[in-house]
Amino acid sequence: MSEMKKEIVLTGDRPTGKLHIGHYVGSLKQRLIMQDQYETCYLMIADMQALTDNAHNVDKIRKSILEVTYDYLACGIDPNKTTIFIQSLIPELTEYTVLYMNFVTLARLLRNPTVKHELDLRDFGNSIPSGFLNYPVSQAADITAFGAELVPVGDDQLPMIEQTNEIVRHINYHFNTDIMKECKPILSKITRLPGTDGNAKMSKSLNNCIYLSDDEKTVSKKIMNMFTDPNHLRVEDPGKVEGNPVFTYLDAFDPNKDELEEWKAHYRRGGLGDVKVKRRLEKVLQAELAPIRERRKQFEEKPDQIMEMLFESSKKARVIAQENLNQLKTVLGINYQK
Amino acid sequence: MSEMKKEIVLTGDRPTGKLHIGHYVGSLKQRLIMQDQYETCYLMIADMQALTDNAHNVDKIRKSILEVTYDYLACGIDPNKTTIFIQSLIPELTEYTVLYMNFVTLARLLRNPTVKHELDLRDFGNSIPSGFLNYPVSQAADITAFGAELVPVGDDQLPMIEQTNEIVRHINYHFNTDIMKECKPILSKITRLPGTDGNAKMSKSLNNCIYLSDDEKTVSKKIMNMFTDPNHLRVEDPGKVEGNPVFTYLDAFDPNKDELEEWKAHYRRGGLGDVKVKRRLEKVLQAELAPIRERRKQFEEKPDQIMEMLFESSKKARVIAQENLNQLKTVLGINYQK
Repeated sequence: MSEMKKEIVLTGDRPTGKLHIGHYVGSLKQRLIMQDQYETCYLMIADMQALTDNAHNVDKIRKSILEVTYDYLACGIDPNKTTIFIQSLIPELTEYTVLYMNFVTLARLLRNPTVKHELDLRDFGNSIPSGFLNYPVSQAADITAFGAELVPVGDDQLPMIEQTNEIVRHINYHFNTDIMKECKPILSKITRLPGTDGNAKMSKSLNNCIYLSDDEKTVSKKIMNMFTDPNHLRVEDPGKVEGNPVFTYLDAFDPNKDELEEWKAHYRRGGLGDVKVKRRLEKVLQAELAPIRERRKQFEEKPDQIMEMLFESSKKARVIAQENLNQLKTVLGINYQK
Repeated sequence: MSEMKKEIVLTGDRPTGKLHIGHYVGSLKQRLIMQDQYETCYLMIADMQALTDNAHNVDKIRKSILEVTYDYLACGIDPNKTTIFIQSLIPELTEYTVLYMNFVTLARLLRNPTVKHELDLRDFGNSIPSGFLNYPVSQAADITAFGAELVPVGDDQLPMIEQTNEIVRHINYHFNTDIMKECKPILSKITRLPGTDGNAKMSKSLNNCIYLSDDEKTVSKKIMNMFTDPNHLRVEDPGKVEGNPVFTYLDAFDPNKDELEEWKAHYRRGGLGDVKVKRRLEKVLQAELAPIRERRKQFEEKPDQIMEMLFESSKKARVIAQENLNQLKTVLGINYQK
C-alpha cells in the first residue's frame, strides 16, 4: 500500500434533494479517488447552509440528509475512509461563523461574485436573508474548523476559497500567529453535465436530472426523451455534437473513447440516428448505475443504522472542530478558561 | 417575604471598561431593585458583542470582564439572586444567531435605527463588519435563549426589542408554535447622565466619566473640574440649572429633594456659587460611592474566585440556553437526535 497524503480534504453538499449523475461525475467520483489517496477526508452534509435559503422548507432538508447519504454510500464513499458529518451537529461552526463575521465587511460580502450571482438568480435584492449573505463566512468556518487544506470545488466556488483565505491571512497577521492554514481549491476536471433538456444546469426544479436512485426504466425513459441537436431531423442529416447533451454524457461516461470519437464523426457527417446514440448512452449509463442502484437499495433498508453512523462520525468530527476552535480562541485572546 | 414575580429578566453590558456613575444611575440601581422583585434575573457580560467593534482590541475586553464584575458585586448585585454570565461561554447563543440570520433580511438590518445611528457615529459605511451589522440578531438570540420577557433598556435600544419580537412572531407564525415569548422593554426612568464636561454622553474616550472605582480624591477633583453654566461668572449672577451637569447629577443622587429645589431657585436668581454647589454634590456622591468603593476593594483581592463564580453561573445559564435551543430546534425541525 502506497503512502497516504497528509493534506486534509473537505467537501460537502447541501442536502436539498437526491444526488444526480451530475454530482456523480462532477464530485463523487473525485471523492472516491481522494479517499484512497488522502489520510483525512471530511464530507459535510451542509444542512445549516441549506437552511439559509430554505428556512421554511426544513422537511426537504431533513429527508435529504438520508437520501444524500444513501447516494454517498452507494457510490462507494467509505465511512472508514471519509468522515461524513452533519453540519448542524457541529455547533462550533456557528461560533466560528460569528467570530469571523467581525473580520468581514458588508461591502466585501456584497462584492463576492458567487453571492452576487445568486442574488441575481433569486431576485433577492436587499431582501436577501442575512444568513444567505453571510454564507461565504460560514463556508470559511467549515473549512478552517477542520484545518482543511484541499477543497474540491467547481470554478463558481472559487470566490469562497478566496474569502476563506482572506480571513485566514487576516487572523494570522493581526494576531501574529500561523495556526490558520490557507486552503487550495481542487478544480473538478469534468465540466458540469447539462440537463437532459439541454439546459446548462441539472436542477430538480427543471425536472431535467437523472438521479443515482432512478430505477432502470426511469433512466431509460429520461435518456430516450433527451434533447439532442434540434436540426438533426432525419438520420441522414449532419448532426451537431457540441451542445448535444447525449454526447456530453457519453464523453463523461463512455469508457471506449476511440469508438466514441468514430461515432461523433459519423454523427457529424450524417447517417447516425439519435435513437442509436441514445441506446449507446443507455447501455453505458445503466452499466454504471446498476451496481450503485443495487447498493443503494440495501442502505435504504436500514435508515436508523445510517443515521447512527452519521451521528457517530459527526461526533468524531466535532472533537476536531472543538480542538481547533479552542486553539483559535486562545490566539484571539478569548479563551478565559484555558 | 412577599411573592417574587415570575417574568424572566435579562440585562447586560459590553465589557469595554469599568462602569461609571451613569451606568449606576441608569441601570445598576434598577437591577438591584429587580433582583429582589423577580425570581429569575440574568445579567450578561456581552463579550462577543463587544468583539463586533473591538475585534482587534481583545485585551481590553478580557480585562473588563473582571472590572465590570467587580462593579456589579460592589453595587450589590448578588450572584445568588442574579445569574451573571459571560456571553461567549454560552456557545448556544451563536447557534441561535446563525439560525435567526435566516429570518432577517439585509434591508431590515440596514433599517434598524440603532444600527443606522451607530453607522453614522463610526463612519463605517459599507465597511461595517458583518458582525456589527448583525448585532440586533445576536441580541435577539441573547434575549430569547433565556426566554427573557422583561428587558430593561435605554430608549435608544427599543429597536432591538422590536427586532427580537419580529423574529419571535415570525417563528411562532411560520412554524405554528407558541414556544417563543415576546419581550417587553423596561425603560429606565432616569435620564442619561451627561459627562462631567457637559457632553451629552459619558464616554471613556472623552475622559468625562466618574467611575465607580475612582478613589475619593479623583472623584473630588473630577467634580471640582465639572462644567457648569459658562455664563455664571460671578456668584451674584443668575445661573442656569437646565443643562448644568452638576445639578443633573444632584437630581440623580441627592436624597434631599426639597432642599435641592431651594438651591436650584437660589442658583437661578443668583447668589449661589458653583463651588458651593459642587461641594454639595461631592458630599452626596462620596457618601453613595464610599461603600461601593470599599466593597469593590475586597472583590479586587480575589480575581480567581470571581472568575470561578462567573464560570459556575455561566454553566448554570448555559443549561437553560441548551434546553431552550433544543426546544427551538425541535420546532424548526432540525433536531435529528431527539
